[in-house]
Amino acid sequence: MDTRQKLAALRALMRANKVDAFHVPSTDPHQSEYVPAMWQRRAWLSGFTGSAGDVVVTARQAALWTDSRYFLQAELQLRGSGIALMKLAEPGTPSITGWIARQLKPGQVLGVDPQLLSVQEAETFVAELAEAGIAVRPLAANLLDEVWTDRPEPRLDPVRLHSPRHAGATARDKLREVRLAMRAAGARAHVLAALDTIAWLFNVRGADVDFNPVVIAYAVVMEKEARLFIDPRKITPELTKALKRDVKLLPYAKLPATLRELRATRAPVLLDPATTNAWVADQLRADQIVRGPSPVTALKAVKNAVQIRGVAACHVRDGVAMVKFLKWLEPAVRAGGVTELSAADRLEAFRAEGRLFQGLSFNTISAYGPHGAIVHYAADRRSNARLRPRGIYLIDSGGLYLDGTTDITRTVTLGGPTPRQKEAFTRVLRGHIAVAAAKFPAGTSGQRLEVLARAPLWEAGLNYGHGTGHGVGHYLSVHEGPMGLTPKDVRNVPLRPGNLLSIEPGYYRAGGWGIRLENLAFVALDEKLSGPGGDWYGWDVVTLCPLDRRLIDRRLLTPRERAWLNAYHARVYRELRPHLDPEHRAWLKAATRAI
Amino acid sequence: MDTRQKLAALRALMRANKVDAFHVPSTDPHQSEYVPAMWQRRAWLSGFTGSAGDVVVTARQAALWTDSRYFLQAELQLRGSGIALMKLAEPGTPSITGWIARQLKPGQVLGVDPQLLSVQEAETFVAELAEAGIAVRPLAANLLDEVWTDRPEPRLDPVRLHSPRHAGATARDKLREVRLAMRAAGARAHVLAALDTIAWLFNVRGADVDFNPVVIAYAVVMEKEARLFIDPRKITPELTKALKRDVKLLPYAKLPATLRELRATRAPVLLDPATTNAWVADQLRADQIVRGPSPVTALKAVKNAVQIRGVAACHVRDGVAMVKFLKWLEPAVRAGGVTELSAADRLEAFRAEGRLFQGLSFNTISAYGPHGAIVHYAADRRSNARLRPRGIYLIDSGGLYLDGTTDITRTVTLGGPTPRQKEAFTRVLRGHIAVAAAKFPAGTSGQRLEVLARAPLWEAGLNYGHGTGHGVGHYLSVHEGPMGLTPKDVRNVPLRPGNLLSIEPGYYRAGGWGIRLENLAFVALDEKLSGPGGDWYGWDVVTLCPLDRRLIDRRLLTPRERAWLNAYHARVYRELRPHLDPEHRAWLKAATRAI
Repeated sequence: MDTRQKLAALRALMRANKVDAFHVPSTDPHQSEYVPAMWQRRAWLSGFTGSAGDVVVTARQAALWTDSRYFLQAELQLRGSGIALMKLAEPGTPSITGWIARQLKPGQVLGVDPQLLSVQEAETFVAELAEAGIAVRPLAANLLDEVWTDRPEPRLDPVRLHSPRHAGATARDKLREVRLAMRAAGARAHVLAALDTIAWLFNVRGADVDFNPVVIAYAVVMEKEARLFIDPRKITPELTKALKRDVKLLPYAKLPATLRELRATRAPVLLDPATTNAWVADQLRADQIVRGPSPVTALKAVKNAVQIRGVAACHVRDGVAMVKFLKWLEPAVRAGGVTELSAADRLEAFRAEGRLFQGLSFNTISAYGPHGAIVHYAADRRSNARLRPRGIYLIDSGGLYLDGTTDITRTVTLGGPTPRQKEAFTRVLRGHIAVAAAKFPAGTSGQRLEVLARAPLWEAGLNYGHGTGHGVGHYLSVHEGPMGLTPKDVRNVPLRPGNLLSIEPGYYRAGGWGIRLENLAFVALDEKLSGPGGDWYGWDVVTLCPLDRRLIDRRLLTPRERAWLNAYHARVYRELRPHLDPEHRAWLKAATRAI
Repeated sequence: MDTRQKLAALRALMRANKVDAFHVPSTDPHQSEYVPAMWQRRAWLSGFTGSAGDVVVTARQAALWTDSRYFLQAELQLRGSGIALMKLAEPGTPSITGWIARQLKPGQVLGVDPQLLSVQEAETFVAELAEAGIAVRPLAANLLDEVWTDRPEPRLDPVRLHSPRHAGATARDKLREVRLAMRAAGARAHVLAALDTIAWLFNVRGADVDFNPVVIAYAVVMEKEARLFIDPRKITPELTKALKRDVKLLPYAKLPATLRELRATRAPVLLDPATTNAWVADQLRADQIVRGPSPVTALKAVKNAVQIRGVAACHVRDGVAMVKFLKWLEPAVRAGGVTELSAADRLEAFRAEGRLFQGLSFNTISAYGPHGAIVHYAADRRSNARLRPRGIYLIDSGGLYLDGTTDITRTVTLGGPTPRQKEAFTRVLRGHIAVAAAKFPAGTSGQRLEVLARAPLWEAGLNYGHGTGHGVGHYLSVHEGPMGLTPKDVRNVPLRPGNLLSIEPGYYRAGGWGIRLENLAFVALDEKLSGPGGDWYGWDVVTLCPLDRRLIDRRLLTPRERAWLNAYHARVYRELRPHLDPEHRAWLKAATRAI
């Protein structure tokens, strides 16, 4: 079936179910960013494979909303599909509900799958469409599932325990903290749906989703009991044994029975309206729901001492892989035959030589020349460009290790950097340093801080269309909240020591090249500045890999910026040197020379 | 009567009216920052004369909440009053409602004057106290008014027309824009209570309030009619004549009749819940109220071409006054006899020499030595310090001119600056320049931008406890919204060309000295950076006055910062020179020499 045939089949079902529009978001019942194949309904329907994008289908029209990361990709993939591209945040682009309100008439009905909308999103849909007289009808089953006959099977890899040796705390420790916070919020139970919060809380990991070592699960934490709902085919006797004192393991499909039990007790239940789907909320009494962020989100984002040591350790191995890769790259490109995909494979192979490596933390962005300007570019067999000894190459990649998650972007010249490239690179570097070298008082949010990364680019009228940084999980999702370095209000959360974030400003010249420089860093107490007046924080950078000196215009750096760069490079050499052979040492020594 | 006697009299009335607590805020029925003497109930009751501070009185206790600007002053003024000081935003300080909830028992009653709470504040009170079982009772008359027998009379200065020659638009022009916005919000009437919005809309000015040339008034804009409610004793025949085609003038006391009319029509009425008092809302049907920011707030904040020219022109005159003052200061201090108050008077006299001067835009902060560390210090006869030829002097002052409002802070050394003072001054200067020299894309809020001013201080663990900048009215209030340069979420409003803001980072060493450097600047389109990719903005600084070179540690400045400073100083000299005599020219030339 092509997209037009799929749309026709869906529209027939819409008529049969008396809905005038149908909403197909990219997410799953757990509001996941990375969605298991069996739940990738939007990609199957539309052919657009980007990670973010909602489709709405009416009797005559269909449209897909996605953000600037994916404009180019979506244009290509939607060509001829009958689905119009809606560019989010561009002037003139209607909102999803604005568009629906224009397409439908008052009295008509939008059908939704309540498992695929968070409580918050469902409320926004209902409120915004009510103004246009359009009803939102939650459907008991997703219409697409009747059309999608060759749907992938769920993955059944066994659930693994994540050792407290790496996690630094047991599930029991964590349940104690969560129950304290639950009680403080006035609740006697807490339903969890976000997969990374569940994996963290119970120290379990799995292979249900690409790149995120999570397990498809729900969890309910009660005062005396915790229930974990997982497909029983994935449960091993070891897991049952390890958890049995603290956790009751139940089949994934048995969640409704527990929700009915909770409903009957009328006890207050804490739900995070941003990460829990509307179907869960609908199973409870409206007046027993205590709305609030899950306490797990903030607890998970503050790494303990064991995790901090682990993250530092895995970044040494990750840095060694990056150094091997960068040293290999240039001669290999000159010799010929290196492509975006083969380069990414080479880096993965270098990573796999490291201890505790479990796989990649996301699909590597290996982007040569103009592809570098596509912020979330994913090379495929058709686009796969051959690297030449000129121009700019950007690689954004990361590994999952038992002791931490990495995420690093480096941009290198393969020959003949132009003054314009050097200026842009240097401004991106200055923005990176402005954040990484910043000190800030306790209480400061990343939302306030992030403009420091942009100011050096803004000076020249340059900018970038993505956030400056995101939280990073511990052998978990490479994106996590609640904090972040973005202008989004939702990230206006004070940074706390132990938070791990990326710092990744960039600059993209559409059709030309892209630059992004990304390190991970912990928020850390600054002992020297802290005192009776209050605590001060700074950043402990953990990523260890040289920044391409050949792309730096030294004259644009202030002495302070040069000092930061030289100290960083000296440290990269010092920390990686013991793990390198003489040839790589020599390469790294040259690559980290003071400027 | 002293405060203890006043409290006793109030408590007797509380018993008679069956309320267990009574709320005495500092504001008036128009949510004014500067409150006319006849409405300064909180100052009269408590003896605390700061601009911000709420008192709550129970049968046995009384407390006053104020912010860090006023901690020192409130401690002094409340001594022996029987009123406890509650330091806002200090750890352990209860909120007003939290404190009331602890003082009263469930079932007890807080009495409030609904004219003195905004709709928003009243709702917060009701919601927060409901949790503790405490009712909020709006009283028909303010209890204090029975006790306060020697209350000042209202001022009756005639209302003046603000010429469209200075305003750049007529009341008719403005009413057209407001009606458009009103309709867009789905309303058929709009009630205005904030005095600066009313003054702006009708081009009227008055002398009812110190420092703010506003008129005590309400206004109701309807589709075909606009009504302005002012005490008839202040209306001149000229005003009646000038407004008669567009505005119906009615007595201030007649507002209730119009609100009853609106209520009877059931038509939707736009109310700004942040600036309209709860009593107004109570006169209407709840279901006819359309809540939203007054369109006047955003319209008023975008200055037109005539206003922009006027603001530039009045800043030349204001700069001349500042230069005369600064040149006079040092020899006068050496000669002896200069005090904080006499210096402020001298500056006011220099300002009064300028054309179109109408008075000060706020109470001058003339602060020598340790007084400089009190952010909103107001010298009085007791505190009035004598200036000596050493240490640091800070003066924050502004003028009202028919063509604009000024607000400037300069910090100067009177002798022997220490390295610590120079470092702090230079870091404040670097923060000031970081904002003033910044470029930013359309859509950026001042809330995002303001951290640029702090970063150079934060580097050294220094900070300041106030915002970085506020909007400034046009021959109107020196503080206006909706935008601002502060971390407050409420100021997360995109900056727009024509917005006039202060840029005023500082640093304060309690018990030592204070530094603040404040210029006003317009947000302005940057023609060079703007293009098809979007608009870029920068700042057009309007304040013209040298920054004290003797307090600058040149080595801490980057070449870019030095270039900004030298260009600014060159411009100050160029623009003020034609208006100065040879002696002042020579002084200014030296004061603006390149560094």
